[in-house]
Amino acid sequence: MTTELEIVQDWRVFATEHSLSAVELSGDEAIVTWSDGRKTPLNRFFLRDNCTCSTCYLPLTREQLFEITDAPADLAAASAGIDAEGNLVVGWSDGHKSSYAPGWLRSHAPDAESRAERHAARARPFIWGREYADALQSFDYADIMADDGALWAWLSALRSSGLTLVRNVPVEEEALLAPISRISHLRETNFGRVFDVKSKPRADSAAYTSVNLPPHTDLPTRELQPGVQFLHCLKNEAVGGESVFVDGFAIGEAMRAEHPDEFATITTAPMAFWNRDDRTDYRWTAPAIALNVEGDLDEVRFANFLRGPIDAPAERMGEIYAALRLFQAMTRDPRFFIERRLSSGDMWAFDNRRVMHARREFDPQTGERHLQGAYVDRDEINSRWRVLSRQLGEPC
Amino acid sequence: MTTELEIVQDWRVFATEHSLSAVELSGDEAIVTWSDGRKTPLNRFFLRDNCTCSTCYLPLTREQLFEITDAPADLAAASAGIDAEGNLVVGWSDGHKSSYAPGWLRSHAPDAESRAERHAARARPFIWGREYADALQSFDYADIMADDGALWAWLSALRSSGLTLVRNVPVEEEALLAPISRISHLRETNFGRVFDVKSKPRADSAAYTSVNLPPHTDLPTRELQPGVQFLHCLKNEAVGGESVFVDGFAIGEAMRAEHPDEFATITTAPMAFWNRDDRTDYRWTAPAIALNVEGDLDEVRFANFLRGPIDAPAERMGEIYAALRLFQAMTRDPRFFIERRLSSGDMWAFDNRRVMHARREFDPQTGERHLQGAYVDRDEINSRWRVLSRQLGEPC
Repeated sequence: MTTELEIVQDWRVFATEHSLSAVELSGDEAIVTWSDGRKTPLNRFFLRDNCTCSTCYLPLTREQLFEITDAPADLAAASAGIDAEGNLVVGWSDGHKSSYAPGWLRSHAPDAESRAERHAARARPFIWGREYADALQSFDYADIMADDGALWAWLSALRSSGLTLVRNVPVEEEALLAPISRISHLRETNFGRVFDVKSKPRADSAAYTSVNLPPHTDLPTRELQPGVQFLHCLKNEAVGGESVFVDGFAIGEAMRAEHPDEFATITTAPMAFWNRDDRTDYRWTAPAIALNVEGDLDEVRFANFLRGPIDAPAERMGEIYAALRLFQAMTRDPRFFIERRLSSGDMWAFDNRRVMHARREFDPQTGERHLQGAYVDRDEINSRWRVLSRQLGEPC
Repeated sequence: MTTELEIVQDWRVFATEHSLSAVELSGDEAIVTWSDGRKTPLNRFFLRDNCTCSTCYLPLTREQLFEITDAPADLAAASAGIDAEGNLVVGWSDGHKSSYAPGWLRSHAPDAESRAERHAARARPFIWGREYADALQSFDYADIMADDGALWAWLSALRSSGLTLVRNVPVEEEALLAPISRISHLRETNFGRVFDVKSKPRADSAAYTSVNLPPHTDLPTRELQPGVQFLHCLKNEAVGGESVFVDGFAIGEAMRAEHPDEFATITTAPMAFWNRDDRTDYRWTAPAIALNVEGDLDEVRFANFLRGPIDAPAERMGEIYAALRLFQAMTRDPRFFIERRLSSGDMWAFDNRRVMHARREFDPQTGERHLQGAYVDRDEINSRWRVLSRQLGEPC
C-alpha cells in the first residue's frame, strides 16, 4: 500500500532508514518527529497538495487532478497519526483522508536540516584544466550502442565533466545519429538537424570558413543555447585546424577565487550576441557566465565573433570591459585548455553551455576537413540518464 | 562609405536626424556632442570593440575577427574628429584607425537619455481579457501562405497579443506544417514533431485523456518551454471539450496591482514541474511567473497536473501556498478568459510561455475529437519577424 502510493506519484521508491515516531498538530502545521530525533514541520496545504489518493491523482498518467485552490481556506487537519505500516495519516476538516509514506516524507522534508542534506548530496560538476587531457573520459561506440550500463556511464560522464570522447564511430555521413538515437531526438537549428563543418564559399558563419575560431559556445544568439554538441570527425587531412576545449566552469571558479570583482561583473553584465544573414536575424543578451539561484555556475555563453554592441550605462563600460578582457584572456590561458587533433572515427560530445571549443586556422588547400555535428538539449540528456538510473537501480 | 560600414556590421541602415557637432577626449572617453545638444560619453574600449573596418570584421559573415582583449591596456585615442561625411573618426595610440557612422552611434549611445529613449520605444505586449473574444486577431490561411505582408502582420500580432487564429486551414493531417514552414523549423519534443491530441487508451499525459484540463502552459517540465504552439482542429464532434485561453500576463499585471505581496512571492517561489513515464523523466523548477531584468513580465510557467512537491523552507510554505492558491483562482476568473469551440479548419497560434490554454472535459462516446499540434520557439518567430521587417522597411 505504501509502495503503491509512492509509485503512483513518482515511479520511484523512497527508502529511508528513519521511521516516524510521533506527530503533533500545531497551528497550520503537522510536526512529525523522526526516529533520529529530527523534527519536520509540514504545512497543511503542503500536505493536502501532496495527497496521492486515486481521487487526487490520475493513476494512469501519475498526474494531479486535485487543485490546491479548491481546498477551503480554513482547511485543518482534524486528526493526524501513524498507521500500522508507519505512514503518516491525516484526516482533514472537510472529511478527506490522506496518507504519506515515511520515505517520501523524508525525501521531501522542508525542515532546514533535511534541505541542507539534499543540497549537500547534489552532484557537483567535475571541473578540469589541461591535466584532463591525460584522463579524458573515452567510450567505445559499440559499447554505448549495445549496453545500457555503458550508455549510463557515458551520460554520467557528460553530466559531470561536460567533455567526453566516443571512439570507433563508423566513418560514414550521419553515423553520429545512431548514438544520439540511444538518447533522444535532436535539437534542430537554422543550420539543420545535422550540420556539416567544412569551409564553403558563401559562408553564413565563421565556422564555415578556415579562419581561427577562438574559444566559444555555439548559438549564444539563442535564448537557450543547445545543450550538448556531438561533433563527429569524418576527414581531417588539412594542415592546421586543431581542436581546443576549455572548461568554462574552471575559468568561472578561477575568476570567482582570483578576481572576485571581475567575476561579479561578468556574471551580471549584459553581453549582446547576434547572428544575421539574408534569411535569419537572431539576437540574445545575457551575461557571459550565468549563476543559478544558489550561486553555483549554471552556464557559459560566449562567442567573440557573434558579439554585438554592449548596451549598458556609459559609467559601467570601463568595469564591464575590464571583466570581459580578463575573461577572454583566461580562455587562452594554457592551464585551462586541452588541444587535440581530431581523427576520423572520433566523436566528441560536450556540454555546449559549459565547455567552450576553438579551432585553429587551417589551410583548405592542403587537404579535406569534414566534421558533422548535431545538438541535444540538457533536458533530454537528463531525462534519459534518470530513466537509465531508475532501471539500473542508481540514485537519481 | 558610411552605409557600407553599417551594412557590414548589421545589415541595417541606422538613420538619424541628428548629426555630430563636436568631440572631445577626456580620460577613458571620447565625449561627442550632438546637433540637439545631447552629450554621449564613449568608453575607449567600447569604441575600439565596435570598429567595423575589414581587418576587425569579416565582411563575408559580418562577424568580428578582432578580440578586445588584444587591445593594449593603455589603449588611448590619439586623435578624434568628425570627417566630411559626418562620421566620428578615431586614431588610436597603436596606430589603428576607426570610423563610426552617426546613425549607428546614436542608436547604440550609452548615455542615460539615449538608453531611456530606447527602453521607452520598445514594443509593449497587448494585454487582454474576456473582451478580446470580440477583437480576436484572425488571419486567412491563403493570405499568410502567399503574402509576406500578411505573414508579417500575423507574426506581429503573435508577438503583441500572444493569441491569434488562422482560418481556412485545409482539413488534412499535418496541414499545419505549411504555415509553419513559412516561419522556420519545428521545436521537436518527446511527443514528436507533430502531436495528435485525441484521447487514447494508454495515455502518457492528461492531454491524451478526456478529463478537464485546467489552464496551463505546455511542457513546463522543460528548461525552455516551447515558445509558440500551433493547434489545428481536424475534427471536433464530441460533446464538451471547449477550449479556453487566458492571458497569463493579464493575471500577472492584475496580481502586481491588486496583490503585490502575492505577486512578489509567485515571481520568486520555486515551482516544481515533472512528467514521467516508462521512457522519460523530465523535471524543472522555476517560478510560475518570471520577470526579466527590467522587472517586466517575461514568462508564465504553469500546469497543475505536472506540479511536483514544492522544495522550499518550511517557514515559507504558508506564504507560497497563499500566492499559488490566488494565482490558480485567478486563472479561472471569467474576466480573464476566452472560451471557444474549435471548428475544423481553425488553427490557433499562441505564445505557450504567456497564454495558458484549458480544455473542458468531453465525452469521447459522443463523437471524434482530433487536433494536431506543433511548436516553434520564440527565437524563430522573432528572427523571421525581423527579416520580414527588414525586407518591408519596418523598424525592428
